[in-house]
Amino acid sequence: MMRHNPNAISGQSAPRNSQYSADGGLTRMSLKVFAATLILSAAMTGSGLAQEPIVLKEMGSFHVGGKLVEVTGKPIREVVFTPGGQPAKVDPNGTYQVGQMYVQYFVPQEERGRYPLLMSHGGGLTGVTYETTPDGREGWLNFFLRRGWAIYNSDAVERGRSGWAQYPDIFQGEPVFLTTANPWERFRIGGGEGTYSATPSERKVLPGNQFPVEAYDQFVKQGVPRWTTTDDFILDAYSAEIEKVCPCVIMVHSQAGKFGFEMAQKHPDKVRALVAVEPAGGGQEDAVDALKDIPILMLYGDYIEGDARWPAIRQRGLDFANLVRESGGSIDIVDLPAAGIPGNSHMPMMDKNSDEVAAYIQNWLVEKGLYQ
Amino acid sequence: MMRHNPNAISGQSAPRNSQYSADGGLTRMSLKVFAATLILSAAMTGSGLAQEPIVLKEMGSFHVGGKLVEVTGKPIREVVFTPGGQPAKVDPNGTYQVGQMYVQYFVPQEERGRYPLLMSHGGGLTGVTYETTPDGREGWLNFFLRRGWAIYNSDAVERGRSGWAQYPDIFQGEPVFLTTANPWERFRIGGGEGTYSATPSERKVLPGNQFPVEAYDQFVKQGVPRWTTTDDFILDAYSAEIEKVCPCVIMVHSQAGKFGFEMAQKHPDKVRALVAVEPAGGGQEDAVDALKDIPILMLYGDYIEGDARWPAIRQRGLDFANLVRESGGSIDIVDLPAAGIPGNSHMPMMDKNSDEVAAYIQNWLVEKGLYQ
Repeated sequence: MMRHNPNAISGQSAPRNSQYSADGGLTRMSLKVFAATLILSAAMTGSGLAQEPIVLKEMGSFHVGGKLVEVTGKPIREVVFTPGGQPAKVDPNGTYQVGQMYVQYFVPQEERGRYPLLMSHGGGLTGVTYETTPDGREGWLNFFLRRGWAIYNSDAVERGRSGWAQYPDIFQGEPVFLTTANPWERFRIGGGEGTYSATPSERKVLPGNQFPVEAYDQFVKQGVPRWTTTDDFILDAYSAEIEKVCPCVIMVHSQAGKFGFEMAQKHPDKVRALVAVEPAGGGQEDAVDALKDIPILMLYGDYIEGDARWPAIRQRGLDFANLVRESGGSIDIVDLPAAGIPGNSHMPMMDKNSDEVAAYIQNWLVEKGLYQ
Repeated sequence: MMRHNPNAISGQSAPRNSQYSADGGLTRMSLKVFAATLILSAAMTGSGLAQEPIVLKEMGSFHVGGKLVEVTGKPIREVVFTPGGQPAKVDPNGTYQVGQMYVQYFVPQEERGRYPLLMSHGGGLTGVTYETTPDGREGWLNFFLRRGWAIYNSDAVERGRSGWAQYPDIFQGEPVFLTTANPWERFRIGGGEGTYSATPSERKVLPGNQFPVEAYDQFVKQGVPRWTTTDDFILDAYSAEIEKVCPCVIMVHSQAGKFGFEMAQKHPDKVRALVAVEPAGGGQEDAVDALKDIPILMLYGDYIEGDARWPAIRQRGLDFANLVRESGGSIDIVDLPAAGIPGNSHMPMMDKNSDEVAAYIQNWLVEKGLYQ
């Protein structure tokens, strides 16, 4: 397991002046200058002064994957799309594009990541997960972009800008909507049932929790409906993304943990590293051999042992990791509190110490030779 | 009506060397240098060579607006979120956050727009409308960002990263899904019913049409479901965006035409100009007086007279514009073909001459004193 490096907690410096070298040491700046830079960065952040600009070679978006599905036998409808407007005939019978996935990309002018970094969010959320934190700080997308990683941030199929398809005709089952209370109680912020209240001041918070609880209501606005029956659609679209963009490093969170492992198993020649943040599941047990040459980091936050569900979720991840190790693979399993980073919820990319956790990941990527 | 300025068709130069001055003339570069730059730009675009970097002071996202709604009397469900995972109890009764809107922003290091530029997409789409074109060119978001406009690009309520709410409990009615054929026939690409075919080579195209028909299948992937009953939710969220971000210039397309006019009517002190691209509707007829000090540009593409629905849609826009003019307001109504720009579909920001149409809008904004 990698030791936590407190020097890595910079978070605001531009890629071209990064303190990281290929071996994780401090070669470009002396420690004295670096410390001064840290203090300056912190002061600038605190006072809201401008930081270094983000310099992009290009930015844009595309959709990948999906398939065409026929719907038949439905009545024709007349739809007035704009009140008082012209009715338009809408024949629901026909061919539908379904299962595609939205990807937004940002390529820095000076790339330092050896491969693009693909970000995949968790269930009931979208790529917004990695953007600005609920309390308005720069998220992991900016963190890694500023350090010179080309970022490909997706919305999983049926979430966000990927769109969704008719159900039960095309998607099976019904979508799941979460109440405002649900993530508070389930994401190790409050610590289980009964800890949420509509009145913010009456919400119970796990002691030392780093989630920006004052911005919880903003976080809830990021939620979107999700299905639990669309894994095949989602995996197919991720494969299409990998075929278009990779070789690459993949970062996944929560529900996407399973997808990250399965993507790496399906495309071992394209995936150069996998960072699984609070993964909710592992990969295919009968294909662990495919992972043996891919460095993998599994990161877990705090408060797991006291949670109703997370001890079993984590154990399932560890069991899968053991299978990978037994077949010769290399997985670093990091419980952040044991690495000196306490207080993280299920959403470390939003927690107040999000830059500290990101720096830990960045250091790991440097150690694996994926940064130049 | 403003004359089309062919010199404005640059599309690739960085904001700091822009050829535009406050009066729309060429003051910063001689015509000779400018012509040389144009040729160089065109050559670089054609050969795929790198263009100037995009330099951002900041980028990020947030959600605005929405409200809390109670749902009661539903049975509790057990949901397995990850196959083989821990079942989680999902009680659908409770409080839901609904009606919020996602906004992504990009602030250039060197701002030249006098106000931020808010972009609002049309029905069945998302903010992706303004990003990369279906055939992979830079979209209007990049075009205006490169010229120094701070961009706030939103997904309307219930579309994209804004998420959507249960129906019919919270949203009324059912969502509308479009077949792959529908936009081809309705967006003045093919020219009406029967012009679409599943076989690309058999699709009929309006003569001279600028839509990148070879990338139509990519465009279809950008589509998302929509309701026709959520206007109040959408307008409330746009108001929340305006209160947070403006004073500003607003750009709207299609369904959002109505929203743009109504936003300007509700916030006449905050909206410094309105650009309505192919608006599907006007504003509130009893509040036209509120628009009298706001410069408005209404842009229509080609093929309207031969279309089944667009003559009436356009006429409705003109009728509303007349009411605004009668109350002392200033609206420029531009039919692009009459301005020397033929061939545009309902999606000019994606058409092959998208930069030419954007340059027309940019010149108009310069003429209105909104650029420095």
